[in-house]
Amino acid sequence: MKSFELASREYKSEDTIIEISSSRKKLCIGESYCTVIAGPCAVEGWDDYLALARILAESGAHILRGGVFKPRTSPYSFKGLGIEGIEIIARAREITGLPVITEIMDIRDLDLLYNRVDILQVGSRNMQNFSLLEELGKVDRPVMLKRGLSATIEEWLLAAEYILRGGNQQVILCERGIRTFEPYTRNTVDIGAVALLKQLTHLPVMVDPSHATGRWKMVAPVARAAIAAGADGIMVEVHQNPDRALSDGKQSLTPDNYYKLMGQIVKLAEMDGKKM
Amino acid sequence: MKSFELASREYKSEDTIIEISSSRKKLCIGESYCTVIAGPCAVEGWDDYLALARILAESGAHILRGGVFKPRTSPYSFKGLGIEGIEIIARAREITGLPVITEIMDIRDLDLLYNRVDILQVGSRNMQNFSLLEELGKVDRPVMLKRGLSATIEEWLLAAEYILRGGNQQVILCERGIRTFEPYTRNTVDIGAVALLKQLTHLPVMVDPSHATGRWKMVAPVARAAIAAGADGIMVEVHQNPDRALSDGKQSLTPDNYYKLMGQIVKLAEMDGKKM
Amino acid sequence: MKSFELASREYKSEDTIIEISSSRKKLCIGESYCTVIAGPCAVEGWDDYLALARILAESGAHILRGGVFKPRTSPYSFKGLGIEGIEIIARAREITGLPVITEIMDIRDLDLLYNRVDILQVGSRNMQNFSLLEELGKVDRPVMLKRGLSATIEEWLLAAEYILRGGNQQVILCERGIRTFEPYTRNTVDIGAVALLKQLTHLPVMVDPSHATGRWKMVAPVARAAIAAGADGIMVEVHQNPDRALSDGKQSLTPDNYYKLMGQIVKLAEMDGKKM
Amino acid sequence: MKSFELASREYKSEDTIIEISSSRKKLCIGESYCTVIAGPCAVEGWDDYLALARILAESGAHILRGGVFKPRTSPYSFKGLGIEGIEIIARAREITGLPVITEIMDIRDLDLLYNRVDILQVGSRNMQNFSLLEELGKVDRPVMLKRGLSATIEEWLLAAEYILRGGNQQVILCERGIRTFEPYTRNTVDIGAVALLKQLTHLPVMVDPSHATGRWKMVAPVARAAIAAGADGIMVEVHQNPDRALSDGKQSLTPDNYYKLMGQIVKLAEMDGKKM
Repeated sequence: MKSFELASREYKSEDTIIEISSSRKKLCIGESYCTVIAGPCAVEGWDDYLALARILAESGAHILRGGVFKPRTSPYSFKGLGIEGIEIIARAREITGLPVITEIMDIRDLDLLYNRVDILQVGSRNMQNFSLLEELGKVDRPVMLKRGLSATIEEWLLAAEYILRGGNQQVILCERGIRTFEPYTRNTVDIGAVALLKQLTHLPVMVDPSHATGRWKMVAPVARAAIAAGADGIMVEVHQNPDRALSDGKQSLTPDNYYKLMGQIVKLAEMDGKKM
Repeated sequence: MKSFELASREYKSEDTIIEISSSRKKLCIGESYCTVIAGPCAVEGWDDYLALARILAESGAHILRGGVFKPRTSPYSFKGLGIEGIEIIARAREITGLPVITEIMDIRDLDLLYNRVDILQVGSRNMQNFSLLEELGKVDRPVMLKRGLSATIEEWLLAAEYILRGGNQQVILCERGIRTFEPYTRNTVDIGAVALLKQLTHLPVMVDPSHATGRWKMVAPVARAAIAAGADGIMVEVHQNPDRALSDGKQSLTPDNYYKLMGQIVKLAEMDGKKM
Repeated sequence: MKSFELASREYKSEDTIIEISSSRKKLCIGESYCTVIAGPCAVEGWDDYLALARILAESGAHILRGGVFKPRTSPYSFKGLGIEGIEIIARAREITGLPVITEIMDIRDLDLLYNRVDILQVGSRNMQNFSLLEELGKVDRPVMLKRGLSATIEEWLLAAEYILRGGNQQVILCERGIRTFEPYTRNTVDIGAVALLKQLTHLPVMVDPSHATGRWKMVAPVARAAIAAGADGIMVEVHQNPDRALSDGKQSLTPDNYYKLMGQIVKLAEMDGKKM
Repeated sequence: MKSFELASREYKSEDTIIEISSSRKKLCIGESYCTVIAGPCAVEGWDDYLALARILAESGAHILRGGVFKPRTSPYSFKGLGIEGIEIIARAREITGLPVITEIMDIRDLDLLYNRVDILQVGSRNMQNFSLLEELGKVDRPVMLKRGLSATIEEWLLAAEYILRGGNQQVILCERGIRTFEPYTRNTVDIGAVALLKQLTHLPVMVDPSHATGRWKMVAPVARAAIAAGADGIMVEVHQNPDRALSDGKQSLTPDNYYKLMGQIVKLAEMDGKKM
């Protein structure tokens, strides 16, 4: 098997920088930038999401997250607001001037998302949905590719290669924990993968400590570890009332805990000479 | 999370039997039937495939397999013959009178496959491609759902539930090995999953010892183990010249070794009171 | 790293046969013999153990098992009867004429066990307790080496090599399930390992479906699968009152279910040309 | 199963501090202290070890490491210098005034080690060697308990409980990577385990990024991540000539790379208000 090529440092030695133009300012991901993506796991309604978006914008988040098409293990779980959810995040983007990211599960949703969303996320379960990856390779939008639940680092980079090969060079990798035998935590964050990827590839590497741990008390220490290991940023879940969240409340930070974490991330980024 | 329901023994205690009408005879999968699916990993050309199909038909295979859209870890690997491949398996079906199975990776290929293929296979990488599963739930064709690389048994049954819930009751589960730390074999066959599934669900359960082990010398013993553990059948790779196969040659049986295995499977099925 | 040598088929092509002389008859393990080891997880008292031993002897078990030094994950769990337990199994051996097997956790117990026990078992947790293995290499007693919880096949054979290299050629390998992410079952039986080991090594390979699955309903199908895959025998837990067992009751067969299983094993062994 | 108790925060809310008196100064591990243990994987000879010990002492290492009894997967690998090795580390301890740590594999070596070594290490393979743990529970020496290759966090704490229960309260936990499916790295560092353990237990938690990753280029980023996640220190391998090391050279830092890492660790510890 021929391995990844376009994703490799051998092919391109300097770090890829992904630029995102929002109404507020130009944003960069990768190289000397440290980026924070924040928001709830799922968009649950107009008022809550817009209120939270304002809080996050004021507290220094660079990008807003919010799932509207949710891939759920059970067909009986809440699957997101769909089209209405997209309208909500599009409105939050307008109000705050921040770029937004959401997951695309089906290429048939591309038209709907293309003009309303700044970064398209491919979730763990679709990391090897090669039809989807090939289509995203033709799109002029950054793609955040989450690591598959048990994907090796090479498989992950080869999945990125599918997108790069189609012509889309704007790929961000996001470590979100791998599946192991440990029952205490939802998944096991592979911090070594972050260190290794920074050597193997020029693509930006982020970490999602919320999905990875499934426990909000672990989010801050793991987020700090990610930055200390060289990650280009973090993606965290924040919710005004984690106890009432429709999905993944247990792993969401309150806005207060989010502020504290931001202070720590800023210090770590500075120590490493990174801009926020 | 509400768990699987339509797939459970509580919902339906008697075994589901999936009937497939081919030009040759009516074929049943599940309950008291032991089914053998055989063929090469990928369809590689007209002559070889049709010759092999004839051999397999004569030697008692019930269903012909052959990949035409191949999900490959690397974008640089052989991805199957696509449309021409479908024409080849459709011709093999005509000649031998046997039903055929092939993988569907993209719902946009459904029209192409619907009238030419008897069973649609969902591969490991797409086990949680919920968009695809939901669409297949609306289709009047049996679906063979392979287990995801690191899917739990519950996740697998919930994926089946997505299809069942859409109205399509013809779902076959196929154990194809899970990912573990073992480097000797490609994957680790979870024989206990077969035993457990026969208790938890009414759906037929098959085993693919070829993909699961990645070594042809292990195919026969693991296939025998599958039947002894209660599986409703096996799916094996056969190739006239395994050394020259474009994909997965190392795990393919020669026709001779396939004959020997069939003899053993017949005996084990008889011992268990199953029809072949 | 130099790999296993004395354990390999290259070093010794013919199957190793382990002979055990008990007062009843000479017993062989390996090659063309199919061996059944049965008994409770732990020896819990005189009357129950002796009564069960008689039942098992009459129903065709070849070897009696019974733990007296139990390695327990928690220091607060029942750890076995120790010295009194050894007296009990020694008495059962006398009464039934069957050989007995028990686990050795500490080499300082060797004197105590040497004359009272026919096979010394090394448990999963001690598979890489190299001090213990080296000492057992000097002992004139068969050793059953269980696979470590996450040991690769090569590591397991290298652990056997420690014993063989000391001069003790009587090593039996026992697959007892590996640790994976699956929560439904206690461990995942690696049936492919059985098939592979029969190719790689001349040592006998057995399977313990009770510990491996942790569910008595799965014991029979997995035991059958083991024999069908070529294992030289099985080791199963039997208990008169599984619900009252001090350890591992959930995975124990009742004597009745044990009889049924024996009937199936006899048939499978016959089909494979093996003696019981 | 009753779970860990003496190891829990519920039993003892304040952090355990382990004090070690060496000829140089009193050393503390845990609570507000950040500790660095450094040295080669194995002691290979007098001159090299003593020279390296001097370098490490000058550069701020708190404790010297050096294996003399090496548990090796293969019986054919270098197993350490044994008794002579102990004399070498005892001499290094005398010369530098630093405490030393080495692994104990067999309780029969205790007399030899007791007066020459300050911390006794229990390796991954012996994490559930309960006989050894029980004996170490009676000893008046700190024990560093490495996590088993596939041990859950609860199993690890229960192993610590075996020692605590015997009366020895001086237990240090050391995360050294778990086994997963990833072939790129030797093991997968479980950084979340560090974060979680700091919440669950009062015992000090260290990280060994050398064994965990198996690649020296990953050692510094993973070491930084460990401290950022709240670990009480790190244990790293340093070797003057990694290419000529008798074991684990690929994962060893040169003294120069070790200096750089120390500078980063000092800054991170300061940021976190820890003393070095």
